Amino acid sequence: ARQGQAEVVYGPGKTVREIADIVERLLRGNDGAVLVTRIEPEPARAVLALLEPVAGLPPGHHSPAARQLVWRPRDPGAGRVTIVTAGTADGPVAEEAANTCAALGIEVTRVNDVGVAGIHRLAARADELRTAELVIVIAGMEGALASVVGGLVAAPVIAVPTSTGYGASLEGVTALLAMLSSCAAGLVVVNIDSGFGAAMAAHRILRKTA
Amino acid sequence: ARQGQAEVVYGPGKTVREIADIVERLLRGNDGAVLVTRIEPEPARAVLALLEPVAGLPPGHHSPAARQLVWRPRDPGAGRVTIVTAGTADGPVAEEAANTCAALGIEVTRVNDVGVAGIHRLAARADELRTAELVIVIAGMEGALASVVGGLVAAPVIAVPTSTGYGASLEGVTALLAMLSSCAAGLVVVNIDSGFGAAMAAHRILRKTA
Amino acid sequence: ARQGQAEVVYGPGKTVREIADIVERLLRGNDGAVLVTRIEPEPARAVLALLEPVAGLPPGHHSPAARQLVWRPRDPGAGRVTIVTAGTADGPVAEEAANTCAALGIEVTRVNDVGVAGIHRLAARADELRTAELVIVIAGMEGALASVVGGLVAAPVIAVPTSTGYGASLEGVTALLAMLSSCAAGLVVVNIDSGFGAAMAAHRILRKTA
Amino acid sequence: ARQGQAEVVYGPGKTVREIADIVERLLRGNDGAVLVTRIEPEPARAVLALLEPVAGLPPGHHSPAARQLVWRPRDPGAGRVTIVTAGTADGPVAEEAANTCAALGIEVTRVNDVGVAGIHRLAARADELRTAELVIVIAGMEGALASVVGGLVAAPVIAVPTSTGYGASLEGVTALLAMLSSCAAGLVVVNIDSGFGAAMAAHRILRKTA
Amino acid sequence: ARQGQAEVVYGPGKTVREIADIVERLLRGNDGAVLVTRIEPEPARAVLALLEPVAGLPPGHHSPAARQLVWRPRDPGAGRVTIVTAGTADGPVAEEAANTCAALGIEVTRVNDVGVAGIHRLAARADELRTAELVIVIAGMEGALASVVGGLVAAPVIAVPTSTGYGASLEGVTALLAMLSSCAAGLVVVNIDSGFGAAMAAHRILRKTA
Amino acid sequence: ARQGQAEVVYGPGKTVREIADIVERLLRGNDGAVLVTRIEPEPARAVLALLEPVAGLPPGHHSPAARQLVWRPRDPGAGRVTIVTAGTADGPVAEEAANTCAALGIEVTRVNDVGVAGIHRLAARADELRTAELVIVIAGMEGALASVVGGLVAAPVIAVPTSTGYGASLEGVTALLAMLSSCAAGLVVVNIDSGFGAAMAAHRILRKTA
Amino acid sequence: ARQGQAEVVYGPGKTVREIADIVERLLRGNDGAVLVTRIEPEPARAVLALLEPVAGLPPGHHSPAARQLVWRPRDPGAGRVTIVTAGTADGPVAEEAANTCAALGIEVTRVNDVGVAGIHRLAARADELRTAELVIVIAGMEGALASVVGGLVAAPVIAVPTSTGYGASLEGVTALLAMLSSCAAGLVVVNIDSGFGAAMAAHRILRKTA
Amino acid sequence: ARQGQAEVVYGPGKTVREIADIVERLLRGNDGAVLVTRIEPEPARAVLALLEPVAGLPPGHHSPAARQLVWRPRDPGAGRVTIVTAGTADGPVAEEAANTCAALGIEVTRVNDVGVAGIHRLAARADELRTAELVIVIAGMEGALASVVGGLVAAPVIAVPTSTGYGASLEGVTALLAMLSSCAAGLVVVNIDSGFGAAMAAHRILRKTA
Ligand SMILES: Nc1ncnc2c1ncn2[C@@H]1O[C@H](COP(=O)(O)O)[C@@H](O)[C@H]1O
Ligand SMILES: Nc1ncnc2c1ncn2[C@@H]1O[C@H](COP(=O)(O)O)[C@@H](O)[C@H]1O
Ligand SMILES: Nc1ncnc2c1ncn2[C@@H]1O[C@H](COP(=O)(O)O)[C@@H](O)[C@H]1O
Ligand SMILES: Nc1ncnc2c1ncn2[C@@H]1O[C@H](COP(=O)(O)O)[C@@H](O)[C@H]1O
Ligand SMILES: [Mg+2]
Ligand SMILES: [Mg+2]
Ligand SMILES: [Mg+2]
Ligand SMILES: [Mg+2]
Ligand SMILES: [Mg+2]
Ligand SMILES: [Mg+2]
Ligand SMILES: [Mg+2]
Ligand SMILES: [Mg+2]
Repeated sequence: ARQGQAEVVYGPGKTVREIADIVERLLRGNDGAVLVTRIEPEPARAVLALLEPVAGLPPGHHSPAARQLVWRPRDPGAGRVTIVTAGTADGPVAEEAANTCAALGIEVTRVNDVGVAGIHRLAARADELRTAELVIVIAGMEGALASVVGGLVAAPVIAVPTSTGYGASLEGVTALLAMLSSCAAGLVVVNIDSGFGAAMAAHRILRKTA
Repeated sequence: ARQGQAEVVYGPGKTVREIADIVERLLRGNDGAVLVTRIEPEPARAVLALLEPVAGLPPGHHSPAARQLVWRPRDPGAGRVTIVTAGTADGPVAEEAANTCAALGIEVTRVNDVGVAGIHRLAARADELRTAELVIVIAGMEGALASVVGGLVAAPVIAVPTSTGYGASLEGVTALLAMLSSCAAGLVVVNIDSGFGAAMAAHRILRKTA
Repeated sequence: ARQGQAEVVYGPGKTVREIADIVERLLRGNDGAVLVTRIEPEPARAVLALLEPVAGLPPGHHSPAARQLVWRPRDPGAGRVTIVTAGTADGPVAEEAANTCAALGIEVTRVNDVGVAGIHRLAARADELRTAELVIVIAGMEGALASVVGGLVAAPVIAVPTSTGYGASLEGVTALLAMLSSCAAGLVVVNIDSGFGAAMAAHRILRKTA
Repeated sequence: ARQGQAEVVYGPGKTVREIADIVERLLRGNDGAVLVTRIEPEPARAVLALLEPVAGLPPGHHSPAARQLVWRPRDPGAGRVTIVTAGTADGPVAEEAANTCAALGIEVTRVNDVGVAGIHRLAARADELRTAELVIVIAGMEGALASVVGGLVAAPVIAVPTSTGYGASLEGVTALLAMLSSCAAGLVVVNIDSGFGAAMAAHRILRKTA
Repeated sequence: ARQGQAEVVYGPGKTVREIADIVERLLRGNDGAVLVTRIEPEPARAVLALLEPVAGLPPGHHSPAARQLVWRPRDPGAGRVTIVTAGTADGPVAEEAANTCAALGIEVTRVNDVGVAGIHRLAARADELRTAELVIVIAGMEGALASVVGGLVAAPVIAVPTSTGYGASLEGVTALLAMLSSCAAGLVVVNIDSGFGAAMAAHRILRKTA
Repeated sequence: ARQGQAEVVYGPGKTVREIADIVERLLRGNDGAVLVTRIEPEPARAVLALLEPVAGLPPGHHSPAARQLVWRPRDPGAGRVTIVTAGTADGPVAEEAANTCAALGIEVTRVNDVGVAGIHRLAARADELRTAELVIVIAGMEGALASVVGGLVAAPVIAVPTSTGYGASLEGVTALLAMLSSCAAGLVVVNIDSGFGAAMAAHRILRKTA
Repeated sequence: ARQGQAEVVYGPGKTVREIADIVERLLRGNDGAVLVTRIEPEPARAVLALLEPVAGLPPGHHSPAARQLVWRPRDPGAGRVTIVTAGTADGPVAEEAANTCAALGIEVTRVNDVGVAGIHRLAARADELRTAELVIVIAGMEGALASVVGGLVAAPVIAVPTSTGYGASLEGVTALLAMLSSCAAGLVVVNIDSGFGAAMAAHRILRKTA
Repeated sequence: ARQGQAEVVYGPGKTVREIADIVERLLRGNDGAVLVTRIEPEPARAVLALLEPVAGLPPGHHSPAARQLVWRPRDPGAGRVTIVTAGTADGPVAEEAANTCAALGIEVTRVNDVGVAGIHRLAARADELRTAELVIVIAGMEGALASVVGGLVAAPVIAVPTSTGYGASLEGVTALLAMLSSCAAGLVVVNIDSGFGAAMAAHRILRKTA
């Protein structure tokens, strides 16, 4: 696989047939993990059904919550990531991040629902966060959680803005701009709702130390 | 004065002569406070110099830090406001808020430099904040401080975004959108850099209870 | 309940099951009001159906117009709010504000359909408005009603921009920016279509005086 | 002159020499009014100085407040316009509109400083406004004055947003969008700060009836 | 009717029942025209069906192309408007303008499909346009037609940007900004897709001369 | 020179010393034309003064109007471009385009001041335009000229939006979006004020046929 | 056909009946190619069904992938274009470009799936690209492919941004702005997703040399 | 120092006196590095002059190119970063990144002027880049360099958009959006022009492995 990372197929805009063909080609051409991202339940099951009878291919795994298909996930051992979410609505993005991490052999600890409007919830988990190897912070609306976590921990922090919210949230643009403007030094940011991008960045970072 | 509030002259775009004439007219037509806002040191001193020799007018006070002139500030007794800032750069907006409050007879407590990147600084002041009657939170960049304070206190919280920052801060628009999208329920927001607007809103609220 | 306010569940992005579980937990853990906001009629009825047979829970109330579910609304006595709307299209946001107020024990007076294009309609209600304790102004399109009401009354005014309109209304962004730029001093603003946010802010303000 | 309107030279980006040459050519090629717009005091005086000694040209008039030079203004008789402003800061745009009207032979009535934050000021002038032939409304910040005037009068109303204000005013864009979204039916809008454009539109309208 | 204009009900966000009730009230309270705008075929027919059996009401007319219902259209005699469109896609907006004009007693001439990419088509109609009393120009994409027509005719020109186009057209915002920035002096602009607004503005202008 | 095009140094952000050093290196390393763009008069003269005494370098030419320095301009013979401008304010961008063309050996025909508000001016030059080999259209404000020229000629048309105008012109963004949305098929667009980019694109096109 | 180009009907917003009528009129009035663009499969087949029985008309061809109908495609001989895409998702825009080219008699070479994240894929095709007559580069997300190709080849390069991507891709606006800001000199850009516009521009350029 | 990182003072908006006082306090309260960022040459020298005579303080170092003051830079040993720039104009941001790295004990390798318009320049450095421990890519205009480098290397890549460019570059916003939308998986992004932020993020990452 390119750069030692997994091979990844971006699902939107591709037919079931096209996806199955690309996945088959990738599985035969490499021996690393293969992922399909942003795929809805029905086409996902159709891709699996098309590939199941094909000889010589490993089995595929479907995670509807992460909207992903995965073949040949790597064994754990590529480090550990702590994924922090502000609220329930950020769940699907966290699932995308966690499932991608798992496929890459990265273990995941989850810290859910610690949005800053109830700072005591975050405070209760502060010690746990301070020992994290790498933190992915996922938050929508104003995205303030990233700044607070960035100030708490010395580890690398990858901030993922989500499209949660309405009105002035501007479909995630407000959280994106807020995270980029954070007063916590050394935060890094990925695209709106890109749990996938955060996991891939974590993989680049953790591989260094493995 | 209209609605029992002070009479206020917005300085930008007016000549020294125009400002002096308006102030004189307002001082003679009412007996409340009169303010000139957003006035630079030189024209401020020139306005004072023009009005000083005029018979029958009360003395004017110049606050360069607040960029204001004030005549007939009210006596204290109109309540108390706690003004919280994220960093040093938010100082001028806090000065504008504090000086306007003073002119309106509102007492001011200051909690400075408690930006969320060092959440321990805010934590150290949490008890003090929880007893506040009304809080004005002033923050730029991502404006996350407003959400955290909004979650800490049950009192009214007026959030003032500032134009502090660069790039993705978009001259205060990011902090503005973030405060409006805050996950802390019941925050209210005023215009970018409008320490004046926050103080006037505080005055509307505190008068109810006085 | 946190900060003496009601416990609130934001409906979008949660399953009926998840909402029912959270509500049950909140009802058992506190004795204050519990709200679910932005919930459509069908899931709302499904949540009620799930919780009805559960022993030891108080009955829930469904307001389809406000898109809310409420348990244990507080008794009146937490003050009074006057909710002013510009036109019929602003109705749903006003319902959200009014129903939230009711759940918090705040009484509500309604002044409907006084948009500024027919200033006589507003003029006819001016005396009533001048005696209001606190005013929530709800308007879309250009949002001018907030400025006019802000000039009429000395009480706190919370402005709620709505997404009513088309083209240059930019889904409520124009009304939002207009209200923030208002020439009426001391207006405060909440997010687009956030009747809920306005009611929560009113609760913070009124509690001070109760 | 093209279409029976005055010939107009837009000043910015042209040298004094270029402006003088164009004006001379226009004065010799037509017999209507000639205007130079958006010209600062110094270059304005320099243009006049260059053209004064030239034989056969009519005298030019300089209005520093309007930032204009005018030659051969038309005699009054082309109708009457009422120019309404919200505040002192809108003055320069009103001067540009009024001076252009005068050059086109349109008489001007001024109604100043009737911003909607003090609706009584506007109410006091309502009867006068209702008899106007055509109204130009000039307002910055949230531009609400246009909606209120549009609802008061049956005559044509031309709205001019100004760049007055700060923060969420977005250099006049907020007033522009607000005027375009107005709930008062039949308002028409011109570019930000374009007192000139409003006067030219008035001229198109009034000529029909003259 | 207010200001001698027709009474107008904005359809979106109102139930069939609400619309019928408002229309009945307006028909009984005035003797001018009554319009319902932006109403889809099915609710339009339902409103008519509800009101038909009601005694003492005049018959209503439905124009699906204009998305309007009209009662008591005025007799012609309120002047004449020339409506110019750039392309077929601008048709629905032109229908809204034309049907509103008809209801107000304004006669309409149509000049269709003269977009500037084929300037000969416009040139062929130039003489006809030059004699127009008032021109409404309706164009999407880049909206250039307004500038060219504005340069051709001396009459009032009302420009209506439409949401025709894709990508950089930004749902009509590009045409709107382009018309406001037009190099043709004295153009006035209304909201995106607002054929209604243009007709109401025309009515204000034409009434002056009638 | 890379790709057979001239070597070009972008002036802003470089010291006189840095520019002189880069130019010397380029002149010694190639035998094609060398340009410095967007350089103000003073640093331009300083660069020439630094390089003049250096042995073995060809003489440099300074065009203040184009804000460029050129060494070893190519001989004519690389085709011909017709540069069309809407108004005087577009002049500096046209100079940049024309001077770059000249340096590349492209001959230039100029058609100035044919903005669409006076369509007769453009009509008078239509035959000339129809015989052009390639047209560069330079226009600000609403940029409508590009659409009209695009409809008139069958040759390649490169549209250059300029930052001319104010308010809704948004520093050239409106003209840019308008040109991209043009109803004239097959227009291509370059960056705002980029006379340089248009000339380089012309060079790519004309070289094909030379 | 106008300017020697094909006659083109923009499908959206027109009924099947309207399209069929326009196509019939164009086929009878000219002898060049006729295209309908952006038409979905069902209406496309309906238009063909309506026109098939009509005497004297040539047969129409339907390309569902390009969303086009074509009558009387020209014979090859109008030059050759190389169409380069970044990824699978850019396919539909490439189909629109290729099918338009074919209708205009332009031959097409395809270079697919050479996005810059795997620069080796592009490197493997570099020699082929360097010999291209004219290149159309189609890319979404950040659109970086256009800059790299622009640096590789000396031929004309037309960049087409696509709406592929999510979040910060802003429906193609990011790719559009990026291509306009490209550091590769002489790139030209067309509207988002406008494979059609790119082909028409190519036709203007290639006709010069044919 | 907080989180084991250096103490950093953001210069803008602070007086020389304020900066000197804060620096003195930080130097006495910790034993780590202390930085002042974004400080112009004159105030920088004034701060040094104020602190030099103060007993017991270590000497400060001024880097005008990085616009920074540094006290007690750490010894090398905290890893190595490769800083890649697209062009000369990105130099100041690279200096800020490099000087911050040096203060934190991170060694720096520079790869300058490898913008993608001349992909051979980057190709020549590809092997060197592939062995990098961590890469900071600094590019303005369309920011395409980040995507190409992200595809070349498996190491962590931090992308820094710069405000280089004009027009559609939108002061760095285009590069920012492009980097966030990159087709190269696992890129992370910091604020516009924030060489400082990139270095702080690098420090978080490298500390893990040291
Ligand atoms: N969910 C995702 N978000 C962003 N990029 C993705 C995602 N999934 C795959 N990609 C990237 O998309 C590219 C594959 O695109 P494609 O060839 O269309 O499948 C690779 O560069 C992947 O790294
Ligand atoms: N600093 C300020 N920010 C916002 N509004 C202000 C400010 N100062 C005065 N105003 C308002 O501006 C109006 C006075 O404007 P003017 O008549 O131009 O002096 C009043 O409505 C004031 O409440
Ligand atoms: N199509 C339309 N576009 C814009 N405004 C309209 C339209 N139809 C009605 N209105 C205006 O909307 C208001 C009536 O709103 P409503 O009371 O909600 O029916 C009046 O001010 C009308 O002039
Ligand atoms: N150049 C810079 N860019 C972004 N943030 C910075 C910069 N320099 C310092 N900071 C941050 O700004 C805060 C210090 O702000 P202040 O208290 O105003 O000096 C700390 O959180 C620093 O990490
Ligand atoms: Mg959140
Ligand atoms: Mg802050
Ligand atoms: Mg409204
Ligand atoms: Mg105003
Ligand atoms: Mg059009
Ligand atoms: Mg122009
Ligand atoms: Mg791409
Ligand atoms: Mg670059």
